[in-house]
Amino acid sequence: MNTSVPPSARTQVKRAANYASYDPALLHAIVDAAWVCHIAFTDAHGTHCIPTACWRIGEHLYIHGSNGSRMLKSLMEQDCCVTITHVDGIVLARSAFNHTMNYRSAVIYGRFALVEDKRVTLEAFMDHLAPGRQAQVRAGNDKEYAATTVLRIALTEAACKTRNGPPNDDAEDMGLAVWAGVLPLSEARGTPVPAAECTVEAPEHVRRWGA
Amino acid sequence: MNTSVPPSARTQVKRAANYASYDPALLHAIVDAAWVCHIAFTDAHGTHCIPTACWRIGEHLYIHGSNGSRMLKSLMEQDCCVTITHVDGIVLARSAFNHTMNYRSAVIYGRFALVEDKRVTLEAFMDHLAPGRQAQVRAGNDKEYAATTVLRIALTEAACKTRNGPPNDDAEDMGLAVWAGVLPLSEARGTPVPAAECTVEAPEHVRRWGA
Repeated sequence: MNTSVPPSARTQVKRAANYASYDPALLHAIVDAAWVCHIAFTDAHGTHCIPTACWRIGEHLYIHGSNGSRMLKSLMEQDCCVTITHVDGIVLARSAFNHTMNYRSAVIYGRFALVEDKRVTLEAFMDHLAPGRQAQVRAGNDKEYAATTVLRIALTEAACKTRNGPPNDDAEDMGLAVWAGVLPLSEARGTPVPAAECTVEAPEHVRRWGA
Repeated sequence: MNTSVPPSARTQVKRAANYASYDPALLHAIVDAAWVCHIAFTDAHGTHCIPTACWRIGEHLYIHGSNGSRMLKSLMEQDCCVTITHVDGIVLARSAFNHTMNYRSAVIYGRFALVEDKRVTLEAFMDHLAPGRQAQVRAGNDKEYAATTVLRIALTEAACKTRNGPPNDDAEDMGLAVWAGVLPLSEARGTPVPAAECTVEAPEHVRRWGA
């Protein structure tokens, strides 16, 4: 079922609108595949674009940081734009002009709000990074939780844009003796590297990495 | 030789400043490893964060798009922030609090300017995507070049931030029976996928993809 949320003035895609989607399931999948997002916001020094780790719980995207972070303070005072992009391939067409990329991107507008229940949300973050690990590590203490700020933004005002598949060449270029197709890109998970002093056997979330 | 450019008010890294670098060689390497950058800019509708393909020639980062792009118009009228982030691994520490990521990021401030010599710069873009391909494809015609805008921004006001290596655990956590180390992430290049109608033998830039 391809449900769709009507776009706002900010999320109405105008360029290459045939690649746009307002399907929440696609939005969730793009967010869940991300380790970091890029956040654009403006303060007295100008407009900034800062990468930060993110995770999703239900209909919100979460970020965290130190209480002293100027960005986190700023993000509670004004609207911002959060963007996630996955590049899936280089699309080689028969003409230079028709070259493009395959990608999945999500652009979210809104304002971050403070999250009171830091423990539950940060445990969800750990589960995103390494499923099952929270029960194995030394949990956060009161001082560590007190030093950490967690914010969330609703996923309601958002647009996705995706492209996949082969090149779209002009009809008159189809007869040219030029290789056309896609050079795929994806995320590779390498062999886990234990810390030098680590003598503990690798748990399941480590053994499964890259498997 | 680790040369370094003095930071500006906007590029002076304040948080985790020990990870900051103003070395142009590192900046170039981070830009060259990227297929896309994220650009933050502000217009009458708010602050936006838009991903777009990028490439480097010397001391400038280049982008391109349709003449009709609202973003490209806006970027010539005001300063913006261009950010590139590569996530290199998930860093698993013995305590929840000390988990982090390994990454290489670059943040560039400034204003884009129109590039007059579109042919030379777009050929460099093709060389970035697929070395040697420009001579094999149907080159851009006058109409295609006329419809395309190329912009560039100087790499002079920029900061890099990188982290690599094992977790930094608290001394009192080192004896805990918790696996600690890094789960590596990198870019994977998959087997090239020829377009359905393509009967041309793969050229070197396709054969070498992923090799």
